Amino acid sequence: MQPLYEGKAKRLYTTQEQDVLRIVYKDEATAFNGEKKAEFAGKGELNNRLTSHFFEVLEAADIPTHFIERISEREQLVRRVTIIPLEVVVRNVVAGSLSKRLGIEEGTVLETPIVEFYYKDDSLGDPLVTRAHINLLKIATTEELDLLEQEANRVNAVLRPYFDEKGITLVDFKLEYGKTPTGEILLADEISPDTCRLWDKETGEHLDKDVFRRNIGSLIDTYQTLFNRLGGNTQ
Amino acid sequence: MQPLYEGKAKRLYTTQEQDVLRIVYKDEATAFNGEKKAEFAGKGELNNRLTSHFFEVLEAADIPTHFIERISEREQLVRRVTIIPLEVVVRNVVAGSLSKRLGIEEGTVLETPIVEFYYKDDSLGDPLVTRAHINLLKIATTEELDLLEQEANRVNAVLRPYFDEKGITLVDFKLEYGKTPTGEILLADEISPDTCRLWDKETGEHLDKDVFRRNIGSLIDTYQTLFNRLGGNTQ
Repeated sequence: MQPLYEGKAKRLYTTQEQDVLRIVYKDEATAFNGEKKAEFAGKGELNNRLTSHFFEVLEAADIPTHFIERISEREQLVRRVTIIPLEVVVRNVVAGSLSKRLGIEEGTVLETPIVEFYYKDDSLGDPLVTRAHINLLKIATTEELDLLEQEANRVNAVLRPYFDEKGITLVDFKLEYGKTPTGEILLADEISPDTCRLWDKETGEHLDKDVFRRNIGSLIDTYQTLFNRLGGNTQ
Repeated sequence: MQPLYEGKAKRLYTTQEQDVLRIVYKDEATAFNGEKKAEFAGKGELNNRLTSHFFEVLEAADIPTHFIERISEREQLVRRVTIIPLEVVVRNVVAGSLSKRLGIEEGTVLETPIVEFYYKDDSLGDPLVTRAHINLLKIATTEELDLLEQEANRVNAVLRPYFDEKGITLVDFKLEYGKTPTGEILLADEISPDTCRLWDKETGEHLDKDVFRRNIGSLIDTYQTLFNRLGGNTQ
């Protein structure tokens, strides 16, 4: 069966229900716009379990998401949406591209979280865009951007204390949103150590894909450590 | 006499008046964050004349600027301000970095002009920044950014028809603003073919620094042509 869509870390398939898609998590990890890639046996299962768990946490906090249920080790069912081609990035602590862009040291805690938008276009390298650029590209209206920013801040307000209680700093994370056929905007895609920066509060240890990007540890051991630290909740 | 400040294209000197500076326009042209540079005899004089003229046009339209008067071929007097470290870019037509960032063809006319902010920091390559970044860097308040955007649009509303009448499209331009000791925000720096993209409406010929950036013509011939086309006004 041909996937409806194949991304770097997931495949999407239609189901017998028009409004429902099946996601299969792949074992592949990529970084730097696909320039670096590798397979890690078990990654797909870990990310499927982690993402499913985070979406359940968010749904419990009344945040609308595309998630329906996890149906197997690597599979979940989600509501069908058209992805808005923006990466919505929320930052609590300076790291990665923000540190490079503004010349601020990694680890600097932001007084107020900030939300950034990146244009999802691999051929352009997913560039940072301003609201004026987004209007120009006709990707979203000003009202929709206000909603995305507000919703992304709400996700942060749920996940930041959730990780904090587990001794982990939620440094930053990337969200994607989609629109249902009736125009409802839902949190979509995944939330996993592929899409978040997570640092141990005591040691500063990276519990996310930076271990792969920066060659500073085993991706599977790291994701498994994170999985264990989040406890039986993720089962 | 030591300059108070030396930039890529100008030197600034104090004068006997505390609130007045003297600018000397250099013959040097630079591009790509200083990686490409060359001297062009006569450039300083042309840019001093052109900038002085444009500031006079703007002052006549009640736009507050730092400009006092041109006092010699290469010199002008200006009010002393502390420069806000932002490049305020106004775009009417897609060109240059906007074309590369968004993958939109050069020459595409924008339905509405857009204003962008770049962080003036050579070591960082003058990166594009969002309002959230600017707040984080404590460069300007939201109210000040609203003012800068409004003022930049006002400059465009004066200069775009001014050039249009002379058969020239004002494609985009970069402004810098400064603060007086009493907190007044004034348009500062320069407005010249170094800082504007100007295309002949009929032929598309570049009448700006892109001839130097892209090696497509003589900088001095081009600036002289522009000077001539703007007529005796610039004398």
